[in-house]
Amino acid sequence: MEQVDILLSGGIVISMDAAFTLIFDGAVAIRGSEIVAVGEREALTAQYTAHEVVDCSGQYVMPGLVNAHTHVPMTLLRGLADDRRLDVWLMGYMMPTEREFVSPEFCRLGAQLACAEQIRSGITSFADMYYYEAEIAQATADAGMRGVLGQTILKFPAPDADSYEDSLAYARQFIETWRGHPLITPAVAPHAPYSSTEDLLRQSAALAIEYDVPVLIHIAETRQEVDDSLQERDQRVVDYVNSVGLLDAKVLAAHCVHIKISEMHTLREHNCTVAHCPTSNLKLASGIAPVTDMLKFDVTVGIGTDGPASNNDLDMIEEIRLAAILAKTAANDPTALPARQALLMATRQGAEALYLGDVTGSLEPGKLADIVMMDCDGAHNSPRFRRDPNAVYSEIVYASKSTDVAHVMCHGRWLMRDRELLTLDEEALKQRARDYAVKIDVFLAAHEGDIFSKLLAVTQGMERGESFEVQTKAILRDASGLERLLSHPDVQILKMNHYRQYDTYFEFDRAEVGRLRYREDDLLDDKGEAQAVRSRLTLTMPTKENTFHSSVLLSHSRFIAPADRPLRFYREYFQPVAERELQKDRRRWHLHYQGVLFYLNVDQVLRPEAPDTFIEIKSRTWSAMDAENKAYRIQQMLGIMGVPAEDIILTDYLEMEGLPD
Amino acid sequence: MEQVDILLSGGIVISMDAAFTLIFDGAVAIRGSEIVAVGEREALTAQYTAHEVVDCSGQYVMPGLVNAHTHVPMTLLRGLADDRRLDVWLMGYMMPTEREFVSPEFCRLGAQLACAEQIRSGITSFADMYYYEAEIAQATADAGMRGVLGQTILKFPAPDADSYEDSLAYARQFIETWRGHPLITPAVAPHAPYSSTEDLLRQSAALAIEYDVPVLIHIAETRQEVDDSLQERDQRVVDYVNSVGLLDAKVLAAHCVHIKISEMHTLREHNCTVAHCPTSNLKLASGIAPVTDMLKFDVTVGIGTDGPASNNDLDMIEEIRLAAILAKTAANDPTALPARQALLMATRQGAEALYLGDVTGSLEPGKLADIVMMDCDGAHNSPRFRRDPNAVYSEIVYASKSTDVAHVMCHGRWLMRDRELLTLDEEALKQRARDYAVKIDVFLAAHEGDIFSKLLAVTQGMERGESFEVQTKAILRDASGLERLLSHPDVQILKMNHYRQYDTYFEFDRAEVGRLRYREDDLLDDKGEAQAVRSRLTLTMPTKENTFHSSVLLSHSRFIAPADRPLRFYREYFQPVAERELQKDRRRWHLHYQGVLFYLNVDQVLRPEAPDTFIEIKSRTWSAMDAENKAYRIQQMLGIMGVPAEDIILTDYLEMEGLPD
Repeated sequence: MEQVDILLSGGIVISMDAAFTLIFDGAVAIRGSEIVAVGEREALTAQYTAHEVVDCSGQYVMPGLVNAHTHVPMTLLRGLADDRRLDVWLMGYMMPTEREFVSPEFCRLGAQLACAEQIRSGITSFADMYYYEAEIAQATADAGMRGVLGQTILKFPAPDADSYEDSLAYARQFIETWRGHPLITPAVAPHAPYSSTEDLLRQSAALAIEYDVPVLIHIAETRQEVDDSLQERDQRVVDYVNSVGLLDAKVLAAHCVHIKISEMHTLREHNCTVAHCPTSNLKLASGIAPVTDMLKFDVTVGIGTDGPASNNDLDMIEEIRLAAILAKTAANDPTALPARQALLMATRQGAEALYLGDVTGSLEPGKLADIVMMDCDGAHNSPRFRRDPNAVYSEIVYASKSTDVAHVMCHGRWLMRDRELLTLDEEALKQRARDYAVKIDVFLAAHEGDIFSKLLAVTQGMERGESFEVQTKAILRDASGLERLLSHPDVQILKMNHYRQYDTYFEFDRAEVGRLRYREDDLLDDKGEAQAVRSRLTLTMPTKENTFHSSVLLSHSRFIAPADRPLRFYREYFQPVAERELQKDRRRWHLHYQGVLFYLNVDQVLRPEAPDTFIEIKSRTWSAMDAENKAYRIQQMLGIMGVPAEDIILTDYLEMEGLPD
Repeated sequence: MEQVDILLSGGIVISMDAAFTLIFDGAVAIRGSEIVAVGEREALTAQYTAHEVVDCSGQYVMPGLVNAHTHVPMTLLRGLADDRRLDVWLMGYMMPTEREFVSPEFCRLGAQLACAEQIRSGITSFADMYYYEAEIAQATADAGMRGVLGQTILKFPAPDADSYEDSLAYARQFIETWRGHPLITPAVAPHAPYSSTEDLLRQSAALAIEYDVPVLIHIAETRQEVDDSLQERDQRVVDYVNSVGLLDAKVLAAHCVHIKISEMHTLREHNCTVAHCPTSNLKLASGIAPVTDMLKFDVTVGIGTDGPASNNDLDMIEEIRLAAILAKTAANDPTALPARQALLMATRQGAEALYLGDVTGSLEPGKLADIVMMDCDGAHNSPRFRRDPNAVYSEIVYASKSTDVAHVMCHGRWLMRDRELLTLDEEALKQRARDYAVKIDVFLAAHEGDIFSKLLAVTQGMERGESFEVQTKAILRDASGLERLLSHPDVQILKMNHYRQYDTYFEFDRAEVGRLRYREDDLLDDKGEAQAVRSRLTLTMPTKENTFHSSVLLSHSRFIAPADRPLRFYREYFQPVAERELQKDRRRWHLHYQGVLFYLNVDQVLRPEAPDTFIEIKSRTWSAMDAENKAYRIQQMLGIMGVPAEDIILTDYLEMEGLPD
């Protein structure tokens, strides 16, 4: 008799191995963290003695489920603002709440609560993307779960970083700390192509390749994303990320709702994998991912719950069921994505999607002991048919409930026995989560009336501007300096426009809510006649600024939206405490200086009237490092123009001396 | 202090009344079967003393859920044959199993098991369509649930009736017995337009109107159904049932996946209601019902699980969630079908859909006490936000589980307390269901190799022929008799075709499996040249026959499918034990006699060669009564032709004397 630690004895063993071996009175022997044997109960009880024998009769014994895409700390934002427009949900609720509340503590707690819920749902492995991912790693390891955990990189300032360079540095540190851990695979998670810059994507890929860790990213989640990508660069989303080299890394692409067959081939050629998130895709009205085609073209597809802010739970059984039934209607074929294949996507194939296929996802000797035992005898699962052994998969996928999960083991360690969690204090977690919810409610109740939320509510197509602006302003005393710059060999003029700009600034009692500008841009023709008018609203949140190489470096949040109603409407709606007007004549050049885009404005301030002509050189960027580079180039351009230091003005037009209030 | 029987005290009372009153620390007072008061806990505890006070703190207290469409005995067929082609699933598994097993006992047991599952899922009322509905009524009343229970009427022979006339008689008897019961509303359930005749629909409507009971029917479930309806009668499905007067009854139409706006208006004008079944529609690849439009045009829509053979469970919470999220993607709008509206469809509006809106579906004084208490504090539902009271609906719809249901009351009676069923012995039911499953497995294992299943597997578009055939054959000795009939004023000739027919009959060792005919029909032109060839397979199951008015009345199951492979293939595939050939020249008239359709064949049997010319008059029908009427008319036609009784032949060509084997 060989000695093992644990023998799971009896029950229907669903191995999900390559042969889909099913054993109706089976057993699994476990030593340490590993599965030693899978076979008939009689044979294994004859062969092994165990420290612990668990009677699994009346249960399905199957691989721990793999949740291929989630954002675990978002348990703390569950149900915060459902059934809203996508931009309202995201920019009006999620982002402000995250800006305010996301901290190491928040991430740790949210991850713990998510681990509790995931263990209850039979999940043993998951792929996550969020902030402060090191905290999530600690929570996951403490809970005893397996995680592929991606530190989020965003072009926007994030709760854990002011710039994406900071996020990349955090990610590097995170990988260094956690790589080699038996449960945790650190990963790099550029949020999405539309929320990344090309440089951000390249650097993320390089970092992932350097450490041989996965890249987690959202790809083609919405039609809008695809349309924007086509418009911006005439490339579909997968083609774009491929062209910047991202697919050279081990990419796990979440969603892929709007991808074409050719993009599936591209993913397949690069051995990239996909996380299918049907509940989230339906709930956010994103669409139905072409899963049947992806599988047909041999793309590895796992199933993910997505974060609990858009699901709103982490119930994998439900997710598998929805994947299976939704694919049938999408393919107009009731035989599409049969139950066994759906369960495969949540076990062995899910593990492959997470690049963990060699260690988990099926019950086989040599694999790690990630195992779930589910009761199979509920009223909702009675009776059961055994003529066709495949009926087992159908029972699990079409009739079982996550609450049928009775015991869960990960890495040979019990995480739940008889529905009792062994590694987490669920009641304490729920209490702490309640405390957060109270604070978030108070914050949002105040926030819901704020300028940002009100702006979001009356506009469509609001966009977030680059976080960093570099700008220098000077009195233009010598027109020949301008000529010199524009004809300089390092300068290439892209275009020049002539505007009359009418700005109205709304100011509010509390400076922290920001300043709202209503701008009407009249584009003038050669004769000075307006040939096109564009109105926009720009909300600028309080600015951090410093000076660098004679430029002002602004780091702030700017939100820009088309203004399709008259100024009077906005005045009544926003009720500013003060209002200021600025009118100017502006000639604006778009130019490349040493290949880098800058805007050069020559402004005559008409109201309040100012005697001088001003020159402004500006650029915008998502990168803190890039902002400094640009400031340096602006200084060079000022040198070419011969602007003396004393003519440089570091204040805004509104704050300039000599311009009356 | 007023005396009541039960006071539900504390908890979040979700009334679902017209004002959507929410009480965060509420109470409900119940006397007998009725709700006496709904209000603040403090106010009600001051006003009422109760025999039983139930502490509901930490729970949602809400109306019992309404399952607007199901087939409860099909719990016993749950997961029998999933992920199959629709015709294979229906004709290959469901129908044969039902023919074999559906009995009063089967229906009673299946209904009891379904009641257990439904109570666990928070359902207190449901609409059902099945056979032996009186048994289901008894099971439902014994379980203490509320049911709108429709006796199925089909043009096919059903497990509980040989003809639809028998079903209508059963339905009348059922209504007479059960009307006025406090829990049971008997109803008439013509299965669907495509499985009904016009007469069947008219008689069903008349019966329902006579007793003022609802009509339950499947409407426009698949695209195929709509296409067939358009092809057959140039009417969409709702237009057709309206044209035959069905919508004058109180109709609850299940599915309505493929209906147009104009059909919604028609339903609305007739105050007809709809049961939306998203899981079943997705799983059978039927499509996505236009629920958002139906609601927009003010159609009353409930939510149904459909039967557990196509779902495969009776989990209303899951069904509500799917309805809510699916509508968003279908409408391409994340604000479509918000949580509160989805819950409304499963409570008050669901009750209205069942024509029970005056007695249940909301917590209001005067309504019956159909109440569910759900735990609201699971990890999957933590934390909860209270800034927006609507978050309560979001929690229930997007995150709760049916297993959160702790207590259920219907008609003032406890059906479940602390997850323990009080009116049903669940373990005994599950055991009896297991016994059935074993027998069904044995039956299907044998059946899977039978001729019918093999035919279904290699054909597409198999159809079931009319159950009743009336036919008379005679030797045609006098051509002038034929002339007399064809020119008779009661006869209108619709068309005449000339065929050469090559029949091959496959016979099998056991007569009960039926006889399979492969027929090649060569349509001949004036010169006797074949201008079109059509091959078909017809499986005829053993026949009950009797003679009536000199005709043979055949009552049998016939399945007809196009034969798109050569005879040799079918011979090898079916392996008949014997084979017989019949070749004939046939002139076939389609004619109306007194407005009724008949086929008149003048046949010359060429192989085996027969000296006589034969005349055949045939008609087919779904109605036993109609068959007798037609036999009577055939006798009249024989009289017009002057065919003497001794020339009438009551046997098939294959069995005729004088034709060698």
